[in-house]
Amino acid sequence: MSQQYKIALDAMGGDFGPDVVVPAAALAYAQNNNLRFIFFGDQYRISPLVEKHKALAKVSEVHHTPDIISNDEKPAVALRQGRNSSMRLAINAVKDGGAHAVVSAGNTGALMAMAKFVLKCLPGIDRPAIASLFPARLNDTVMLDMGANISCDAEMLVQFALLGSVYARVVRGIERPTVGILNIGSEEMKGHDHLRDAASILTNVKFPGHFKGFVEGDDIPNGTVDVVVTDGFTGNVALKVAEGVANLLLDSFKGALKSSPLALLGGLLAYGALKRLKKSSDPRAYNGGMFLGLNGICVKSHGGMDAYGFSCAILVAANLVQQGYNERVAVELEKLLGQESFVSELSGAGS
Amino acid sequence: MSQQYKIALDAMGGDFGPDVVVPAAALAYAQNNNLRFIFFGDQYRISPLVEKHKALAKVSEVHHTPDIISNDEKPAVALRQGRNSSMRLAINAVKDGGAHAVVSAGNTGALMAMAKFVLKCLPGIDRPAIASLFPARLNDTVMLDMGANISCDAEMLVQFALLGSVYARVVRGIERPTVGILNIGSEEMKGHDHLRDAASILTNVKFPGHFKGFVEGDDIPNGTVDVVVTDGFTGNVALKVAEGVANLLLDSFKGALKSSPLALLGGLLAYGALKRLKKSSDPRAYNGGMFLGLNGICVKSHGGMDAYGFSCAILVAANLVQQGYNERVAVELEKLLGQESFVSELSGAGS
Repeated sequence: MSQQYKIALDAMGGDFGPDVVVPAAALAYAQNNNLRFIFFGDQYRISPLVEKHKALAKVSEVHHTPDIISNDEKPAVALRQGRNSSMRLAINAVKDGGAHAVVSAGNTGALMAMAKFVLKCLPGIDRPAIASLFPARLNDTVMLDMGANISCDAEMLVQFALLGSVYARVVRGIERPTVGILNIGSEEMKGHDHLRDAASILTNVKFPGHFKGFVEGDDIPNGTVDVVVTDGFTGNVALKVAEGVANLLLDSFKGALKSSPLALLGGLLAYGALKRLKKSSDPRAYNGGMFLGLNGICVKSHGGMDAYGFSCAILVAANLVQQGYNERVAVELEKLLGQESFVSELSGAGS
Repeated sequence: MSQQYKIALDAMGGDFGPDVVVPAAALAYAQNNNLRFIFFGDQYRISPLVEKHKALAKVSEVHHTPDIISNDEKPAVALRQGRNSSMRLAINAVKDGGAHAVVSAGNTGALMAMAKFVLKCLPGIDRPAIASLFPARLNDTVMLDMGANISCDAEMLVQFALLGSVYARVVRGIERPTVGILNIGSEEMKGHDHLRDAASILTNVKFPGHFKGFVEGDDIPNGTVDVVVTDGFTGNVALKVAEGVANLLLDSFKGALKSSPLALLGGLLAYGALKRLKKSSDPRAYNGGMFLGLNGICVKSHGGMDAYGFSCAILVAANLVQQGYNERVAVELEKLLGQESFVSELSGAGS
């Protein structure tokens, strides 16, 4: 029998709760038969849905939890008062060894606060980051942080570079991933000090990636590097701008193809090709914000995702478990922290 | 005779120098017969080009300048050593009253450093910002700062809100423009302190815009507000991400329409509609970064623009002059600085 991977699912998170999470698990299971599921939440809503999927029912448990973390709950409040919530108990399952990973579509801030509190950071990591895949020419770009840390110092950015390059290596199979720090390019504006300090450290230490220096905003969709490192504020703005521009342009295309009978006919003839294009840039396939740097695998789904989108987030978590992501990060961190040049660069950067 | 507007042109800036700047002036003049031009640069290259355009030749002077600021010159060096450069002497012409505005496609940092040094800031403005139009649903969004100031405090953001809303009112004719501060939305990450401080000031003072609070990255292309205020680092990243995503999608779209004979036929039938779409999002039409907050009008063209693109930057400068932008800003600044609530909010924000 091959290895089984147990995924703890916060069934009450997101806009649709179990109505999306249960069928999503069924879809993920169809893709990967090694998965097992523990649903946390209202068993009276979850169990009837699970029973509808015979194959899923055989590999699932339901753990009843009385409380739900609402989307507008402040993280500190959720942490204090949410001890019996579906989200918290799903995270606890990873801590206790009952599950290999947790996936939730709930309140991002509460999930991050609880995951940090329960799972703690890996040794050598100050604060976890949220990493996402960004659609790009040729290969997708891995980008972090997407919003967990609005300000980052040089050392955190170096840690993110390591977290991102181990991800690109072990999950995406890129032997020596290229890494860039997001900056603005003009000569005269050299960017914030901590960006230069981080660049100096990454130039001098050995780590699993190949540091290529600074990159600019258009390098993200262009896929100039495999891993883009930035603070959570800039990363979040960049992601939302990209989503907004993509939606605006797709709507404009649609509008143009409906603007005249001839254009409409043209659009119909090109329908198959345009549908393939749409599929290749389907945001659901990019769902799954990875909380990297924690002592446990935790993945966040967008709250508004449908079952297919949520199933993609489950498969992201499963991949991190199967590839032994955290174990590889731990090994690389130990190597990094032991380097004389890392220690001397860090003390230099702080001065 | 109607009012004439004299534009000082740095003919040596940009990737193509006079070969682009001179025909650009001819195009701008065809659009606006009230324009007059002074070309600064190598007269032996400029004059023959001007002579080719008879109408232009009648309304142009050429001012020979020996030096050129290169694209990789550091701003401080350009400031010290570039006193006889085409860029510097074109700026001087605005200061001396010989021209109403200056347009350059040269080194951004050098242009900003020289413009600040020569023209100074308007009273009440700490540092100028670069403002650009951003294509959005319905109306374009005015965004600033796009890269002049990598870090901004609350007071600077408030000044930018005023500069942007006066622009939206006097140039774009929006009586009470809506203004938003760019932030990341999640409840748990409240954004940097100075963003909250700026929001608090804008909520309490009277200024020419209507403050709508925080906006997120996707609100820029969605046109949720007329004016988006941010620091130069974030603004520059947002602009470049948007350009990169738009280029990637347009290329993917072209690729899809060539992927099969049927799609190709469809693309040909829809050609007219797609061409109109391309024209409506032509980046050349959005060329012209406005240096707002200076005691004089200064507009930066992209270095790689062709004559049509550069002519758009000239017309942006002409518009600011014709609408009396700086005079209106001065009036509004005086009103703002005289408000008791502004002064008390500012001292509160610093505490």
